Amino acid sequence: MIYVTRKAHFNASHRLHNPSKSDQWNRDTYGKCNNPNWHGHNYIVEVTVAGSPDPDTGYVIDLGALKSIIKSKIVDPCDHKNLNLEVDFLQGIIPSTENLCRAFFKQLEADVNASASPGSQLYSVRLYETERNYAEYCPNR
Amino acid sequence: MIYVTRKAHFNASHRLHNPSKSDQWNRDTYGKCNNPNWHGHNYIVEVTVAGSPDPDTGYVIDLGALKSIIKSKIVDPCDHKNLNLEVDFLQGIIPSTENLCRAFFKQLEADVNASASPGSQLYSVRLYETERNYAEYCPNR
Amino acid sequence: MIYVTRKAHFNASHRLHNPSKSDQWNRDTYGKCNNPNWHGHNYIVEVTVAGSPDPDTGYVIDLGALKSIIKSKIVDPCDHKNLNLEVDFLQGIIPSTENLCRAFFKQLEADVNASASPGSQLYSVRLYETERNYAEYCPNR
Amino acid sequence: MIYVTRKAHFNASHRLHNPSKSDQWNRDTYGKCNNPNWHGHNYIVEVTVAGSPDPDTGYVIDLGALKSIIKSKIVDPCDHKNLNLEVDFLQGIIPSTENLCRAFFKQLEADVNASASPGSQLYSVRLYETERNYAEYCPNR
Amino acid sequence: MIYVTRKAHFNASHRLHNPSKSDQWNRDTYGKCNNPNWHGHNYIVEVTVAGSPDPDTGYVIDLGALKSIIKSKIVDPCDHKNLNLEVDFLQGIIPSTENLCRAFFKQLEADVNASASPGSQLYSVRLYETERNYAEYCPNR
Amino acid sequence: MIYVTRKAHFNASHRLHNPSKSDQWNRDTYGKCNNPNWHGHNYIVEVTVAGSPDPDTGYVIDLGALKSIIKSKIVDPCDHKNLNLEVDFLQGIIPSTENLCRAFFKQLEADVNASASPGSQLYSVRLYETERNYAEYCPNR
Repeated sequence: MIYVTRKAHFNASHRLHNPSKSDQWNRDTYGKCNNPNWHGHNYIVEVTVAGSPDPDTGYVIDLGALKSIIKSKIVDPCDHKNLNLEVDFLQGIIPSTENLCRAFFKQLEADVNASASPGSQLYSVRLYETERNYAEYCPNR
Repeated sequence: MIYVTRKAHFNASHRLHNPSKSDQWNRDTYGKCNNPNWHGHNYIVEVTVAGSPDPDTGYVIDLGALKSIIKSKIVDPCDHKNLNLEVDFLQGIIPSTENLCRAFFKQLEADVNASASPGSQLYSVRLYETERNYAEYCPNR
Repeated sequence: MIYVTRKAHFNASHRLHNPSKSDQWNRDTYGKCNNPNWHGHNYIVEVTVAGSPDPDTGYVIDLGALKSIIKSKIVDPCDHKNLNLEVDFLQGIIPSTENLCRAFFKQLEADVNASASPGSQLYSVRLYETERNYAEYCPNR
Repeated sequence: MIYVTRKAHFNASHRLHNPSKSDQWNRDTYGKCNNPNWHGHNYIVEVTVAGSPDPDTGYVIDLGALKSIIKSKIVDPCDHKNLNLEVDFLQGIIPSTENLCRAFFKQLEADVNASASPGSQLYSVRLYETERNYAEYCPNR
Repeated sequence: MIYVTRKAHFNASHRLHNPSKSDQWNRDTYGKCNNPNWHGHNYIVEVTVAGSPDPDTGYVIDLGALKSIIKSKIVDPCDHKNLNLEVDFLQGIIPSTENLCRAFFKQLEADVNASASPGSQLYSVRLYETERNYAEYCPNR
Repeated sequence: MIYVTRKAHFNASHRLHNPSKSDQWNRDTYGKCNNPNWHGHNYIVEVTVAGSPDPDTGYVIDLGALKSIIKSKIVDPCDHKNLNLEVDFLQGIIPSTENLCRAFFKQLEADVNASASPGSQLYSVRLYETERNYAEYCPNR
């Protein structure tokens, strides 16, 4: 098994807020991350595809194709955007790092699997919110 | 001359917008950085003090004291905040990286100079907006 | 399964020395790492918790709570300390990177599991001794 | 289970080219990576050994020994070389990141396993081609 | 004075070789960097513009414009290329890091100065050949 | 003017302590950095040489020669050593980052200037004590 990873960046604003709970609950739970005037991050996303290299190309997936998929499915919809208000595929999702990387995985899965070499597929999505905090969604480990 | 540098981090939202200009001018000038729903960054600030080490301590400035000044003057007012709306010392300033590092310098200058060893003083403030973009204000180079 | 990671730093001195062996064995085995006058490192520790996000909060674990646990259980006892002489929970342990990350895991386990969302638990501890050397303890992989 | 990792660097030139295919196929498949005048990279290789620390030494493997094996088996044959033309153990292999990390694993396996503590063995080889692209070969995960 | 910096990457092959000297002189002077089969690097270039922010925009230079100039003048001609053979503006130049950053400065100067705010101009070009080696050309410091 | 920089690493123990002052003064001044059982760091040193490239070689200084000088003059005497007790050229110096980088400059100056191209000379020494703290000695800026 070989794991191939491509990294990308985007900058966005967000706040942690559960609209089904009271303002008091949200302030107590999320602290400064609940700021109603938003805060933001330079997000780094790492997308990993697992499989066997195609014998003709030596590729598990063409990294140029993977870069294009990440750009159209994640970076273009999210870069310089408000993740709570402006991203269709994140509607109804509290934008914690955990929830974002799971949503990104679902957003990427079909296109990545269609581009990967036979027997290869999307394996994990890791998302760095800061240099010190990150989450990884890896459903089949 | 010895230059001593301390690095700190904060996360904030902002937008680039000149309120004395039309919305059209702002969109044309700032592009996606003008998004009315804000975007954000993990800012890294590097503060440099120049001078001679005190012969008793070996310090140009006590880095613990410098860390505390950066925390109280920059990180606490800016972290998880909206730089356009919520930071007193940034009112009336378009929060470009250039303008932010100059404002941070002024905000730090008196306290840093009072804490530095005799003959030492604040030299520069560098601010990374992203891993690929940064600005530095260095008035006496 | 989602994996959430928090990174922390501390600086410490140590030496590699097995007191049940001769000085000659120790010099032969550990080389310059056996220096009786100690050497030291800027350690980076990465703590990973695995589980499912709580549906109300979107959190596998509150990263602020995880940061506090790492501070009280690892950073406060170890920072600016001698790992052979001054850290209670490391007594009797040769402070190789391997042994340190296993000891840190045990030191963190109860508190992290008590703070994590239901069904989530401490998954691994990775410790960087230098930029080029690190160890990871991951008992359930 | 404890995983110990050592990182190394080398600089090399290469091109992606399958000599059993037409020039047109190669240009279409590999794009600028097929440039007949070569391009190059600063490669970073991370070698991970898995096992239990030896109770006498606290080591899964002596990292000095691991460093020497990586130097003699990977860095010395590849550094400042052309990976398509000048490296014996890469003859007949298209030097994609995927294929390189698998070839490096085979090249390291016997020596690493002979040096590791009883019950420990080579676990994975990760290769960074650029800061944004990497592959990992991990046959037993 | 404010200094604004934009970073970019490219991958290329090269060799150090002075064609006006003997092969023996070249081998003695450049060692493995003289390999006739080429080697390569992931180059990182940092371009700094110095001046005063335009009062309307807050910009010393529009970093989007600077990114485009670096792309068309440096990255597009050099990425995945052989710096000795394929880059017009490097013909006749020994591609040491020193010579490359000076050549890049000249290549960028007119376009950067035309895009910068009044009174601002290109200040320096720094080029990282590896993580451990870099050169900077800064003609007016 | 072109500035060429080479980076190196070493690991050492130290404590901040002025032996001409009382223990109480030392504890008050240096806090945890005064720990009598030592602490340590992964130091990173960056050495910069300024000048003009030699027209024959394209070098301000041969970086292989610079690497060897840094190794023999700084890394070999300091690596895995106690900076207060075991380094001849640091005797009588309080090992603050400021004092270390000035002492390293003096230690390097003669050999670097003898190896640099005509008209080139040692320009600065920067020393990172941690990822967040560094000092630079630059006597002629």
